[in-house]
Amino acid sequence: MNLSPGQLDTLFQALGDPTRRAILERLARGPATVTELAGPFDMALPSFLGHVRRLEGAGLVETSKQGRTRTVKLVPGAFTPVRSWLDEQRALWEGRLDRLDDYLTRLMKERADGS
Amino acid sequence: MNLSPGQLDTLFQALGDPTRRAILERLARGPATVTELAGPFDMALPSFLGHVRRLEGAGLVETSKQGRTRTVKLVPGAFTPVRSWLDEQRALWEGRLDRLDDYLTRLMKERADGS
Repeated sequence: MNLSPGQLDTLFQALGDPTRRAILERLARGPATVTELAGPFDMALPSFLGHVRRLEGAGLVETSKQGRTRTVKLVPGAFTPVRSWLDEQRALWEGRLDRLDDYLTRLMKERADGS
Repeated sequence: MNLSPGQLDTLFQALGDPTRRAILERLARGPATVTELAGPFDMALPSFLGHVRRLEGAGLVETSKQGRTRTVKLVPGAFTPVRSWLDEQRALWEGRLDRLDDYLTRLMKERADGS
């Protein structure tokens, strides 16, 4: 995947807030209006809208307006860059453990042969 | 997993910086001294150490000192809470798509029966 470091920064930073993660958790169950989304939060609407806009800026949600109602929905595949980065880290780590395992096996074999 | 929202905040925020992600990518290949780690970065040492401390605070790396040398290594399983959260989101999303699929199948069957 061709991804600028800035995109990963924006994604991880967007996820580093409990309100924004709660919004995403709600939207994973289906789209919602801003009013529905804001309901459970004890927060002024402008602050709440700031969180929605931050998620929109990170490409995690999309919003659309019909009349006076703004609907928010999750962007399919928006978590993919984050997952890919984590998968790469796991692959590097497991590759390292495999090499360590090979090394220890060889070492034990050499010792057994030498004894 | 029993995880406070604050822990996820700290983890995601720690990952939202290119220098800190690069440190983690390097450490996935094996432990390194602070001097080795800092090498590729055009950054004053105190700023660089700030990033290492931030990763340590999030529980992503461990450091140990022998003489004047500080070694940094990845904490095994440190990404697990982040992965778990992403997996939960995927499960919610896929559950939603499954229900939508069931609904559409039932709707089409009802229409076919009715025609």
